[in-house]
Amino acid sequence: MNITELKSQIRLKKSFLCVGLDTDITKLPEGISKSVEGMVDFNREIIEATKDYAVAYKINTAFYEQLGSKGWRALEKTRELLPDHALTIADAKRGDIGNTSTMYAKAFFETMDFDSITVAPYMGLDSVKPFLKFTNKITIVLGLTSNAGSTDFQTNSIYNPPLYKTVLQRVSSWGSSDNLMFVVGATKAEALKEIRRIVPDHFLLIPGVGAQGGNAVEVCKHGTNQHGGLLINSSRGIIYASQGKDFARVAREKAKELALETAPFAESI
Amino acid sequence: MNITELKSQIRLKKSFLCVGLDTDITKLPEGISKSVEGMVDFNREIIEATKDYAVAYKINTAFYEQLGSKGWRALEKTRELLPDHALTIADAKRGDIGNTSTMYAKAFFETMDFDSITVAPYMGLDSVKPFLKFTNKITIVLGLTSNAGSTDFQTNSIYNPPLYKTVLQRVSSWGSSDNLMFVVGATKAEALKEIRRIVPDHFLLIPGVGAQGGNAVEVCKHGTNQHGGLLINSSRGIIYASQGKDFARVAREKAKELALETAPFAESI
Repeated sequence: MNITELKSQIRLKKSFLCVGLDTDITKLPEGISKSVEGMVDFNREIIEATKDYAVAYKINTAFYEQLGSKGWRALEKTRELLPDHALTIADAKRGDIGNTSTMYAKAFFETMDFDSITVAPYMGLDSVKPFLKFTNKITIVLGLTSNAGSTDFQTNSIYNPPLYKTVLQRVSSWGSSDNLMFVVGATKAEALKEIRRIVPDHFLLIPGVGAQGGNAVEVCKHGTNQHGGLLINSSRGIIYASQGKDFARVAREKAKELALETAPFAESI
Repeated sequence: MNITELKSQIRLKKSFLCVGLDTDITKLPEGISKSVEGMVDFNREIIEATKDYAVAYKINTAFYEQLGSKGWRALEKTRELLPDHALTIADAKRGDIGNTSTMYAKAFFETMDFDSITVAPYMGLDSVKPFLKFTNKITIVLGLTSNAGSTDFQTNSIYNPPLYKTVLQRVSSWGSSDNLMFVVGATKAEALKEIRRIVPDHFLLIPGVGAQGGNAVEVCKHGTNQHGGLLINSSRGIIYASQGKDFARVAREKAKELALETAPFAESI
């Protein structure tokens, strides 16, 4: 899926929702076996339950890697379950020198055929460029993250302009709004206005809604652009909304709720 | 292996050598099948050939991930082949919000039992701390990297002090020289003096010797401390030194050469 198709899905589903499959083997609900097979079964039900509202799915690689090669197999199987009508995101936060980044790009763009991957910017141009070289793929670079530690470097006040602005400015010149997005935490909704001045056209992937305290409507108010321009991720708030056998039904309700909340913004693009 | 044991190995082997297993399935030498099994066979021979000189082995996860879950299995098998008398490093450049970093830490410190992992600092304290919580494990944070892109943010002259110095300063306060190391590229040997002022006691993992142009003796001149304090990595310069059936013998020679070059520094600690 490319950016044009993503925009169509946002209009069609009236939703910016990205469902985060941070699937923790120890937190699987009643009726699902606490095994790698159970993780895949759980993901299958969550995907089926939420696909009418989700325009994207984000798989957090850490939760699968934790289980070694068997977990990595569950990651591959989960990727195969994702529908064609949603953007597929490998939330992997990779990034290394050129030849190594090329290997990571192959892992996620070719071997597993993800549409996009999250990438850390610290190592600069030659660590990001190998991802951008893949046609019809999207590189999602960390801008301003939702966690407390973002104050250590990204918004450290000894730097003016703050580091995250320099990152947005510089990285945005390495690609276009067709092959580049940025991660911006929802807990920083007030910063979105300023961010839109630096990257008016790019899509922003917004984690931190729900469990981390971000507000989806606030995010839309400050963050949408003429293309929609937002993917609002919710992980724990949807996939662990119920620990009972009704987990899929409740996940669907939560997904619908979140989509409805921001539907007026999605309709108007 | 912990830092005390690492120091003993440096004295014993008179070497700072870390052998990088950036094993590329397309570059396997004559006599080794170009398959995931071949990668493991190749690694076994390289490890056997270099273990008298290597005080550490660094496995670059990208080269294995590229091949999906089968590649990840080869990574696990390679980990099992590493000798107890060398520090084991997962060169994974991970880092994410707290609960996700904890998963990455489990993946590499528990499931695969690596002694250490490389971590990217962009997301700050709560992305690094989960790694530091594991006892008897070492977190190796990116400081000043060896690639051209390090000028984009790490040494970008709009910031004074440069970002990498702020990273070294701040991150070094999150742990001790017993559970924290830094990556500093060999291509920046002249910067080592200044870096030693900020982190006099920490070990530095130095990539970029050989293929990337760094000089091991220069690195030692400016980078050693009273504990040794250096791991000098060579990957391509050792493992692909010969494409013939003699690859293991040639790798051993190259490892010996590199160790001998810096032996006077290792002896004197």
